[in-house]
Order: sequence, then C-alpha cells, then structure tokens
Amino acid sequence: MTDLPSTETLILERDGGWLTVWLNRPAARNALSAAMADELAATVAALAGDPSIRGVTFRGKGDMFCAGGDLKDFGALLRDDVPRADIVDFSRRAGALFHAVDTLPQVTVMLVHGAAMAGGLGLVCAGDIVIAAADARFALTETMLGIPPAQIAPFVVQRAGRAAARRIMLTGARFDGGEALRLGIADQLVDDVAGLEAAEAAVRAAVRRCAPGANAVTKNIVLAAGRLDGAALRDLAADGFAECLLGEEGREGVAAFLEKRKPRWAV
Amino acid sequence: MTDLPSTETLILERDGGWLTVWLNRPAARNALSAAMADELAATVAALAGDPSIRGVTFRGKGDMFCAGGDLKDFGALLRDDVPRADIVDFSRRAGALFHAVDTLPQVTVMLVHGAAMAGGLGLVCAGDIVIAAADARFALTETMLGIPPAQIAPFVVQRAGRAAARRIMLTGARFDGGEALRLGIADQLVDDVAGLEAAEAAVRAAVRRCAPGANAVTKNIVLAAGRLDGAALRDLAADGFAECLLGEEGREGVAAFLEKRKPRWAV
Amino acid sequence: MTDLPSTETLILERDGGWLTVWLNRPAARNALSAAMADELAATVAALAGDPSIRGVTFRGKGDMFCAGGDLKDFGALLRDDVPRADIVDFSRRAGALFHAVDTLPQVTVMLVHGAAMAGGLGLVCAGDIVIAAADARFALTETMLGIPPAQIAPFVVQRAGRAAARRIMLTGARFDGGEALRLGIADQLVDDVAGLEAAEAAVRAAVRRCAPGANAVTKNIVLAAGRLDGAALRDLAADGFAECLLGEEGREGVAAFLEKRKPRWAV
Repeated sequence: MTDLPSTETLILERDGGWLTVWLNRPAARNALSAAMADELAATVAALAGDPSIRGVTFRGKGDMFCAGGDLKDFGALLRDDVPRADIVDFSRRAGALFHAVDTLPQVTVMLVHGAAMAGGLGLVCAGDIVIAAADARFALTETMLGIPPAQIAPFVVQRAGRAAARRIMLTGARFDGGEALRLGIADQLVDDVAGLEAAEAAVRAAVRRCAPGANAVTKNIVLAAGRLDGAALRDLAADGFAECLLGEEGREGVAAFLEKRKPRWAV
Repeated sequence: MTDLPSTETLILERDGGWLTVWLNRPAARNALSAAMADELAATVAALAGDPSIRGVTFRGKGDMFCAGGDLKDFGALLRDDVPRADIVDFSRRAGALFHAVDTLPQVTVMLVHGAAMAGGLGLVCAGDIVIAAADARFALTETMLGIPPAQIAPFVVQRAGRAAARRIMLTGARFDGGEALRLGIADQLVDDVAGLEAAEAAVRAAVRRCAPGANAVTKNIVLAAGRLDGAALRDLAADGFAECLLGEEGREGVAAFLEKRKPRWAV
Repeated sequence: MTDLPSTETLILERDGGWLTVWLNRPAARNALSAAMADELAATVAALAGDPSIRGVTFRGKGDMFCAGGDLKDFGALLRDDVPRADIVDFSRRAGALFHAVDTLPQVTVMLVHGAAMAGGLGLVCAGDIVIAAADARFALTETMLGIPPAQIAPFVVQRAGRAAARRIMLTGARFDGGEALRLGIADQLVDDVAGLEAAEAAVRAAVRRCAPGANAVTKNIVLAAGRLDGAALRDLAADGFAECLLGEEGREGVAAFLEKRKPRWAV
C-alpha cells in the first residue's frame, strides 16, 4: 500500500480497496486552482502504483462538482508577464493531469451534482463511469473568455465523439444531465445525491467481482484501440491475455470457476 | 475582408460577420454539378483566410438541401473515355472540397430541409452543427449505381461512427431527420423551415459570444484529436492555449471578465 | 464459386448469393470451442475470395447466439503447462478471426437471440448489421475470471465507442437488447426470432439492390477511415471510385439508370 499525499484542497477517504477523492474548496466552487491541480496530480501518481486500491470516486464537496479553472490564475499569467514557455507548460500540465486520470489502472467513477464546467468537465470526461444527478449542469465556456478549452477537448471527443464535441465547444453550450446522457458524456442519470451514492455502491459491488489486474490490462487495451492498428493491437491484446491467464489472477479465477467458489478478489 | 468569388450556382449572402451560402440550382434539385463544386471550393478557400466572417450557413434554395452528385457528370466521364487519372482526380477533388468545409476556421451550420442525398449528405456531415427539419430525408444510394460513396464515407463515419456508417452505406439506407438525430448525423430536429431559421438564429447568438480566434483554435484541436497521440496532442493544445491567452482575444476576454463587461467580440 | 469447407460445429446454408452460418453446438450453448473457431476461420477465408456470395448471416442454433469462449480450453491451457508463446498465439488467433469477420467483403448480419457473451459478443461487434431480439442478453464477464476480454475489446470499442466500452468491460456489465441499441451495439430491436428473420429478409432485399463490388470497396474505405489521415484516405477513396466507375458495375449501373431499368445485380 503506497502512502497517499497530504492534501489541503482535497479530502482523501479510503474505504478498503476504494478511494474517494473529494474536491474540497466549496467556498470557491471547487475551482481547479493550481494547488488543487498539483494535489490531484500527486494523488493520481500515487494511485498508479498502488494495486491495493481497485477503484476511485471523484466528487465535489458542497453544491457542485467543479466550476472549472480558476480565472484568477489566467489573470495572473497575463498580469505578471509570465514567459510564453511557462504558459505552454501550464497548459501542458493540465493535459497531463487529465491524461493521468484517464489512464489510471483503477476503475474511476465521476459523481456529478451541480456544475461541472470547463476543467471540471474535462476531469469528468477522463473517468470510466460518469453518473449525473438531475441538477447536474455542464458547460464549456472558455471561448467566451477568448481562450480555447485546449486540453479538455480531447477528452470530450473521447466521450461524446467529434461531431458533438465541435458543437458544444464552438457555441459555449450549456447542457444538463439528460443531454449529457444523450451525448454519451454521462452513463447514468439519477435523481439526486442519494441516487449518486446508490449508483456508486452498485458500481463498487460490480467492480469487486472483477479481477483488478485483468481490469487494468483491459483498460489499457481499450485505450490503445484506435491508436494502434490491427496487428499491433492484436499483439498487445494477446500479450495481456497471456500475462493475466498465467498470472495469479487467471489461475485463481479458472480454479474458482471449476471449484464453484468465489475467487479471492470477490470475497 | 477578403473578396468572395462571383458565383452562378450559389447565392452568397453576407450579414455582418455571417455568410449564408445558398445552393441555388433548385430546378436541378441543387445537384452538386462540377460548376457548383468549383464555386463551393472557391468560396471556402476565400473564407479560410477571412477572419471578418465568424460563421457560415449552408442551405438549399427551393424544396431541398441537395440531391447529391450530378449523374450526368458520371455518365460523361464514362462516355467520353476520360483517362483513369482524371477520374481519380475528379473524386479526389470532391474529397478535398468536403475536407475544406470540415476544416474551415469558421463555425459552420447546415440547415437541412427535404433531400440531402449522396454528396449532399457528405456536405452535411462536414459541418459543425446540423439542424434538420421534419421533412428532411437522407440517403446514400451510390452503390445502387455500382459506385462507392467514396469521398463521403469518411465524413459519415466522423458523424455517425463506424458501425452506423457501415450499415447505412451497405444497404443504401434511406432515413429521416429523427433517425439522423438518433445516429448523431443531426444535432437538432425542428418542425419546418421557420424552425430551421429560429434554431440558426440561436446558434448565431451563441457564436457571437465566443471569440472567433479561440473558436478556430478549438476546432483545430478537436479535428486533431484521434489523429495525434497523447503527447503530440497536448503540445498542439498547449501551443494553441498560449497563442490565444497572450493574443488580443485572451487579454480582452480576461480583462472584460474582471471588469464585468462584455468582450469586444460579443458587443 | 469457391468450395466452402466441411464443418461439424457449423451448418453452412447457401441460398443464392447469401450464406447463413449457423453456430451449431446448442448442447454446449454454442460456445466458441477451438474447433468452432477453426471452422469459422476456414469459412471466412473461403468467403473472402468468393464474389458469388454477397451477404452472410451469422446466427445460433437452439436457445442462444453464443455463450462465449469455452472455459475448458482456458483450463487446459493452464493444466497442461502450455508454453506462454502458445497462449499468446491462441489469443492472437481469436483476434485474427474477429478481424477476418470484420473485414469480409460481403455484407454481414448478426441475428442475436438469447445470450451473446464474451467471444460471442466479439463476433457480434465484428458484423455490419446487428439485429437483436427482445430476449437477447449480452455480457463481458471475462475479468470475473481473472482474464481480460483482450481480443474482443477493440470490436466493442468500434461499435459502442471508447467510453461505453470501458464501463461495460470494467464492471462485467450484463445488458439487454434495448441497452445494446442505446449503446450502438445493436442497430435494430425486434420481438422474437420471427422478427429477426423478417428484419434479415429486409436487409437481404436492400443489399440485392447494391452492387457487390461497390459495397466491398465502400466497406474497405469505412474501415480505413480513422486509420488513415486525410490525404491518404482521399487517395484510397479516389482509387476505389475510379475502379468501380470504370469497372463492369459502374458501367452497368450508370447505363441502367439512364435506360431506366434495373441493373443486372438487382434483378
């Protein structure tokens, strides 16, 4: 079990093999400040090497998920004559954070109530499973400020496809949970926060039955699909299959099935 | 402001920062003749370098959007023993036209009433926002003539995904606006031409609030997603972010936000 | 006309230009045994070179489509200390089978009643048109056995998109035909087996009107979209267009249209 970082803008709550990451700046609408982005990156880096955690839920304290980037940060970049290279780096780090969430070996769940705007929507789109409450509202309003949702765009494309992503971003569209479900940005729509928690409990129970190593290999293959072509993808997949079948999990899973008992990870 | 070309098969209507391109061969069902394709290509080339135009609407005069390629052109290619290389070039030019529409820096809106067949559907699928009237009907019937919807296929895949594109094309399927919405080919369904115009007015108002340069950078990133891999895409996005933030639009957008006023482009 | 292989686990039923491939191990829930996989691969290889067959339907004898891989095969791989390279090869062959079905020049139809699990779902997702009965049920439960749905994943991504594929696979989700339709895994939902057959008859009638060579070229372009970038894709498409237009089908199709008669392939 890896040590998780100490955090001020996040509350990390561990419950067995599951970690809940609370965005915890409710007075600032959980805006993704530089400090919060750094703490998220440190948390995700620690998770990537910790097989004792099988799933991660991201959610917001207070009235909403996350109102997006912190506009004060953008103002400061301009006011203080920050060199262009530092601004490029600022943006690239945001993209690296979404990418790190997207490629976590654990199953990731996004529970969305209230606003998920700009970078908040980027974080949502980097998750495996997105559950939205009826009061969820989404927007990409960056271009109304004269800047592109640059690092967010690829993750919106991943969830909603290229056509819907274009429309949403070029019109600064605001939309609710029902529309998010229709666009594929949300996987499930529930009434309220209690509904989010019930749906998350069902995901946890389902994930508990799935071998964590096999899940991580599967996620890696899904992420490679589209990037690799036919033969290279088949090789990656075949290698992952052999690794899992010959590993502890495959032996245990097949044995448990033949012995009509639950495998170790599902107990 | 760039000069727009003189056109006979198109009517170009400029209204402030918005251009309406009317396909204007209603007696020929607005079929994409060689002349119309050339004029569309010239118009799109002029637009690509004209930042004074922020949005473009494509629509058809008369009863429909566009009935597709002009079959007489195909017949002439065969009858006149045109060299194979010229036929390849004829097809490639059609693909280059759809690509040029797809990658316009402006926001593009397709207003579809009546038929949008073959090349007409290709044009529709190259737009950012597709609004269909209840009487819209779509079809890809090329293979019923013994030829593939060759240059159209990639844009149908872009909008509807690979699975739906296969089914539609291999069965010569005909479908209406409701099915187009379900497949992601249309973004919005309205009752009639008045509904198309009301929906388009709403798009114009939304786009007016978005900075045109930031929109163009955003569209470029969306189009690159999938084509570039993670790190290269992050670099492209970070560069676009810095360019916009340090440019006139970013400075104006952030200043306007802090001063609680509308930015210049939204007035 | 190519000879089709002799098969024990499949029934091959030819009706004019259409082949029905029945998975025929009803007592074993049509599980994809090594023998059935080999016979499917031989059948698909024979089809790939046989232009006299224009369409192929895959369906299951008995109560279901296909319950997936044969778990006894996995057990044997472990029990008999099979070398790692052979296990990699076993997996790669499964991927090559799905790929061969995916890229068949014929139009492929999957008729799903009852279960389509694991490899059965992989086969479904490699088809052009998927029609599901109300009693259809789907699942990817591999990770519950400690192994990834390695070679299946790319085809689920192709049909359902990356986001839905992640959720389905990482939670071992079970879902019915309605959900399959919503996810894009099924194209059409019908009541029962009679409904499957009526829907398939409509597909056959539609495909009969489409030129088989043009359909094969079209399918190849759709499969290339996303893999090739803009200019290379335009070249491939332009070449396919010229090949078809100058070939027998193009000449016949254009002539038939101008003479107001049905083309030869539609009679």
